Amino acid sequence: MGKKIVVIGGSAAGPKAAAKARRMDPDAEVTIIQKAENLSMASCGYPYFIGGLFDEELKLICTPTGVPRDTQFYFKVKAINAVVGTEVTQIDRESKIVKAVHVKTGEQMEEKYDKLVICTGSKPIRPNIPGIDLEGVSHLHTMEDARYLKEEALKKEAKHVVVVGGGLIGIEVCEAFTLAGIKITVVERSDQILTFLDPEMAKLVEKHIKSKGSDVVTGAAVEEVTGKDGKISGVKLSTGETIGCDLVVSAIGVRPNSDLAKNAGLQIGETGGIAVDEYMQTSDEDIYAAGDCVEVLNLVTNKKMHWPMGDAANLQGRVIGQNITIGNAEVYDGVVGTGICKVFDFTAGSTGLSETMAKAEGFDVVTTIQAAPDKPTFMGAMPIVIKMVADKESGELLGVQAVGTGDVSKRIAMAAMALHANMGVADLINLDLPYAPPFSPAIDNFVTAAHVLENVMLGRMTGISAPELKNKLDNKEDLCLLDVRGPDEYEEMRFGFGELEIPLGALRANTDKLPQDKDAEIIAYCKISLRGYEAAIFLESIGYTNVKVLEGGLVSWPYDKEK
Amino acid sequence: MGKKIVVIGGSAAGPKAAAKARRMDPDAEVTIIQKAENLSMASCGYPYFIGGLFDEELKLICTPTGVPRDTQFYFKVKAINAVVGTEVTQIDRESKIVKAVHVKTGEQMEEKYDKLVICTGSKPIRPNIPGIDLEGVSHLHTMEDARYLKEEALKKEAKHVVVVGGGLIGIEVCEAFTLAGIKITVVERSDQILTFLDPEMAKLVEKHIKSKGSDVVTGAAVEEVTGKDGKISGVKLSTGETIGCDLVVSAIGVRPNSDLAKNAGLQIGETGGIAVDEYMQTSDEDIYAAGDCVEVLNLVTNKKMHWPMGDAANLQGRVIGQNITIGNAEVYDGVVGTGICKVFDFTAGSTGLSETMAKAEGFDVVTTIQAAPDKPTFMGAMPIVIKMVADKESGELLGVQAVGTGDVSKRIAMAAMALHANMGVADLINLDLPYAPPFSPAIDNFVTAAHVLENVMLGRMTGISAPELKNKLDNKEDLCLLDVRGPDEYEEMRFGFGELEIPLGALRANTDKLPQDKDAEIIAYCKISLRGYEAAIFLESIGYTNVKVLEGGLVSWPYDKEK
Repeated sequence: MGKKIVVIGGSAAGPKAAAKARRMDPDAEVTIIQKAENLSMASCGYPYFIGGLFDEELKLICTPTGVPRDTQFYFKVKAINAVVGTEVTQIDRESKIVKAVHVKTGEQMEEKYDKLVICTGSKPIRPNIPGIDLEGVSHLHTMEDARYLKEEALKKEAKHVVVVGGGLIGIEVCEAFTLAGIKITVVERSDQILTFLDPEMAKLVEKHIKSKGSDVVTGAAVEEVTGKDGKISGVKLSTGETIGCDLVVSAIGVRPNSDLAKNAGLQIGETGGIAVDEYMQTSDEDIYAAGDCVEVLNLVTNKKMHWPMGDAANLQGRVIGQNITIGNAEVYDGVVGTGICKVFDFTAGSTGLSETMAKAEGFDVVTTIQAAPDKPTFMGAMPIVIKMVADKESGELLGVQAVGTGDVSKRIAMAAMALHANMGVADLINLDLPYAPPFSPAIDNFVTAAHVLENVMLGRMTGISAPELKNKLDNKEDLCLLDVRGPDEYEEMRFGFGELEIPLGALRANTDKLPQDKDAEIIAYCKISLRGYEAAIFLESIGYTNVKVLEGGLVSWPYDKEK
Repeated sequence: MGKKIVVIGGSAAGPKAAAKARRMDPDAEVTIIQKAENLSMASCGYPYFIGGLFDEELKLICTPTGVPRDTQFYFKVKAINAVVGTEVTQIDRESKIVKAVHVKTGEQMEEKYDKLVICTGSKPIRPNIPGIDLEGVSHLHTMEDARYLKEEALKKEAKHVVVVGGGLIGIEVCEAFTLAGIKITVVERSDQILTFLDPEMAKLVEKHIKSKGSDVVTGAAVEEVTGKDGKISGVKLSTGETIGCDLVVSAIGVRPNSDLAKNAGLQIGETGGIAVDEYMQTSDEDIYAAGDCVEVLNLVTNKKMHWPMGDAANLQGRVIGQNITIGNAEVYDGVVGTGICKVFDFTAGSTGLSETMAKAEGFDVVTTIQAAPDKPTFMGAMPIVIKMVADKESGELLGVQAVGTGDVSKRIAMAAMALHANMGVADLINLDLPYAPPFSPAIDNFVTAAHVLENVMLGRMTGISAPELKNKLDNKEDLCLLDVRGPDEYEEMRFGFGELEIPLGALRANTDKLPQDKDAEIIAYCKISLRGYEAAIFLESIGYTNVKVLEGGLVSWPYDKEK
C-alpha cells in the first residue's frame, strides 16, 4: 500500500500538486477532494468567455489537445482519484483524517492521509452595504458567476453595468462587457485604478478605457445598491452621485480561504493566508498548502504577502508534489510581484514595487518614465511608456511598470527576470537582447529606460514627473514650459498652457527668446522627451541652472491638455 | 576651444558615440566622417523595404517623429559636424590627424583629433567563384544594394532568385522576395540554415520556409554563377545540380572592416576585428572602436568573437561617448550572443550557445526540447518549440533557442536576461512572470522548458532528441515507438513507422500490448510529449528499464513522417 496523499481543492495548485506527486511516486494513492464540480478550471479565462472571445465553457477545463480534465480524465490518464462536489469540513490532524460532505446529497465521507495538501483558494470580499443581496449583484469568482455574467452579456437586456473595484478583475470585466456591447462604469474607492501602477501610469490606462466608451469613476465608494420592484436600479456613491444600472459586479478583491486550516489549528499569517515555509509546508509537517489560501514571501520587500495568482499557484503545487513524495527537496522562494492585464488595445503590466509601494516600504527611490515606440517606426511600431524604480543609493532595481499598445509583456518579463536575479540599473545598460526590426528598436525600450535612469542617477538629467508638473501648474508656479518640437507636431498635439515653442534645431539661434533669468525654472519637453533632454543639456551649457526634463514627454502626460 | 572628437563611420555605433559625446561635453567639437551618403542608416530594415512593408527609403534614416537624420539635422539639432561621401584613408597616430578624400571629387581633407572613434563597420564576404562579377549578382549590405533589389522586386522581371547563404540575411532576403511574389531558392553550404540553431531546430524553420513556396538547398556550395548573353542564367552547385535563375544575392557573411585600423598599427584580434578592452579602447589610448569592425567578449564562452549586430553597435557607441569625454567610466562587458529572425509566420531566435556550439567549446551538456502553445488554447495560442542547453555538472544555463509561430521574442529575451545574470536551470523553476491569458500559459513555456530540463538532470526523465531517434530509425534499430495520443489525433498526424498506438488513459488496461521484454527500448511520445512523459513514468513503474521520451513530441519532429 502506497503513501496516501489527499489534496483539498482541484483548481490550480491542487491538481498540479496531485499530478506531480503521482509522477514522483507511482505507488502513492492520490485523492483530490473539491467543493466545486469542475476540476482544473482556468478561471483566469472567465473575462474572455464573458467578452465573447469563445463561447464553449468546456474550453476552460480542456487540455491543449481538447480533452476535458474531468474525474474520468484524472482517473484514467493520471491515476488520480478526484472527488468533486464535496466540501472538506474538518481536518483531524491527530487521526490524520479529513472529513467531507457531499454538497448536494449531504453524504459524509472520511479520507485518511499521510500527507495533506490544502489548496482551498480565496473568496471574494463582499461589500457590507445595503442592497448587496439584490438579484443582479454578482462577483466574478466561480464558474457559476462567469456563466451568469456571460448570459447577461448575451441577452443584452442590461443597459448599464457597474463594476465595483478597479483592480485586475474589475478592469477585465470592464473590457468584457464593453466588447459585449454593454455600457459599463468602473467605480473605484481609491484615487486610481490598478493600484499595482503608480497614479500617472494608471491614469494613462484610465484615459484609454474612457476612449473606448466605458466610464471610470475614482475616489468614490459604492455605499448602496438601490433597487426598484426587486430589480437593481443603480448605485449610490460616497460622492453623493447616483449611477443608474441594472447589473452590479463586485470585484473589490479576495481574501485567503484559510478557515479550514485555521480551525485545524494551523498557523495563519498576518495577511490571513496560511503560513508556509520555503517548502510550502505549514506548521504541521504532514500538511502543505499552496495557491490563493497561503501567504508567500515578496522577494523585493522580504515581507510576507497574499498573492492570489494562477501562475504562482501552479508553481507552488509542483513544488509540493515533490516535497510530499521525496521529502523537502524543492524550494519555492517567493514572488517578485508580477502582474499584467489586457485593457482593450492597451497592456498594463508591473513587476516589483511601484514608486508608491517602494516609498511606503521606506525605500529612498529614484525613478524615471520613458516613452518610445516598441519597434523601428517603419515596422508599424506601437508606443510603450515604461516607469523604472530603483533604490537611490545602491542602484538596485526595485520595480518596473509599463503601459501602452506596444509589446509590454516582453518588457515586464525581462524586468521580472532582472528582479529575480537581483540586477541593478547598471546591469541593464548593455543587455544583449533579441534585436531585429520586427521585434524591437535597436536599443530596446527596457534598456533605454535603464539609460535614462542612469542619467538621472548620475545627475546628468533632472527629470520632472507628470504629477509634479501638474502640481506646479495647479499652484500657478512661475515656470517656463519649453516645447522643442517642430511647428507641425505642435499643431497636432500640445499643452496650450502658454508654452514657449522653439524647435530643438532652432534653439541655438534663438536663445534671446529664453527667460533672461538664468535661474528661471525651465521644463523642457518634446513628444517623448529625448529632444527635451538634449535641449536641457544645451540650456545648462549656456548657464541655465534650473532646467528639468518632463519625463516621458507629451505622450506620457495623463492629464488634460489643449490637444 | 573644446576637445576635438572625430568619429569615422556614421551608421550605428558612430552617430551614437558622437551624440553621446556631444551630450556629455557641450564644449567638444564633434565631427563624423563617413564614406556613404546616408547617416544613421537603419540597414537592418533593408529586407522589409525590399519585401514591400514600406516603400519610402527615407524611413530608414528618419527619427521616430519623421525627421531625416541628414547632415543638416546633425548640425542644427545635435551640433555635430557630419561630413559624408568622404572616405578616411589614413590615421596618422603621431600627429593625431585623419586624412580623408571626398569619394566623388577626390578632394583631400585632414582633421585633427584629440579622441578618435573608429566605426568602419563590416564588409560582405565575396565568394571567389566564376561569374561573381556578372550583372545581377549583388549583396545586401549597402543602401545601393537595397535599392537595386527593391527595384528588381518591383519590376518582377526576375523569375527566380538564388540567395547564397542561409544565415540571418539570407533568410530575410528569402522572405522579402517571396513576399514580393518572386520564387527564391536559398543555397547553403553547410548541412543546415541558421547555424545559431541546432540542426533539428533549423530543420523546423526550413520546413516552414518550404511551406511558403520557397526552396532551401543545404549541403551545397555555389561553385559558379553562369551567364548567357551577359545575363545570369543560373548557378552550378557542388552537388552537380544546376539552378536556373536571373538574380543572385550573395549573403555568406561579413568580415570586420578593420584595414584602416590595421594600417594605423592598431592591434587586431584573431577574429580579424579591432581589439578593444572593456572601455572599447583600442591599443592606442586616444582611439576607441565600436560596431561591426571590432571583436567583443562572448560572456558565455569567455572568448573574443566578431558580433556584427546593430543593437550591440549602438550600445558600444554609447559607452564610447562617455569614455572619450569624461575618461573611462562606462564598461561594455560583452555579449551573450542573442539573435532573432522573422521567417514568414515563424520567429527563430537564440541566445547563448546551441548544443553544437557548447560541445565545440568543450562543455558537457544536458539539453531538452519542449513544445507547447504560447497561451491557453482558448486565447488563440500559437506553438513554440524551445530548446534549452545547460552545463551537465553545474546546471548553469548555456543557451536557449526557440522557433515557432508563437511569441518567441519574449522567451529569448528572458533567456538572454538569465544568461546575463548567470542564472542556472534551478533559478528558472519558479519565476514570477507576467501571466494573464492573453500573454502566456499559467506556466510560461520558458519555465516549463526549465522544468523538463530539471527532470532530465535529476534523472526523472530520459529524453531522446529527434536527430537521435531519426538515426536509430535509419539504422533500423530494434525499438518500440509508443504513441499515447487518442485515435482522432492519430488520424490527423502520425509517424506511420509501425508505431504502437495506446492512448495514455488506456495504457494501464492494455499493458499486454506492450513488449514482453522489460528491457526493450520504448520511445514514448504524444503531440508535445507531456503525455509521453507520463506514459514513460508509468512504464518504469511496472518494470520497464529502457524507456525514453521523444523530446518535443510529434510537433517538434522536423523530418518526414506519414502525415
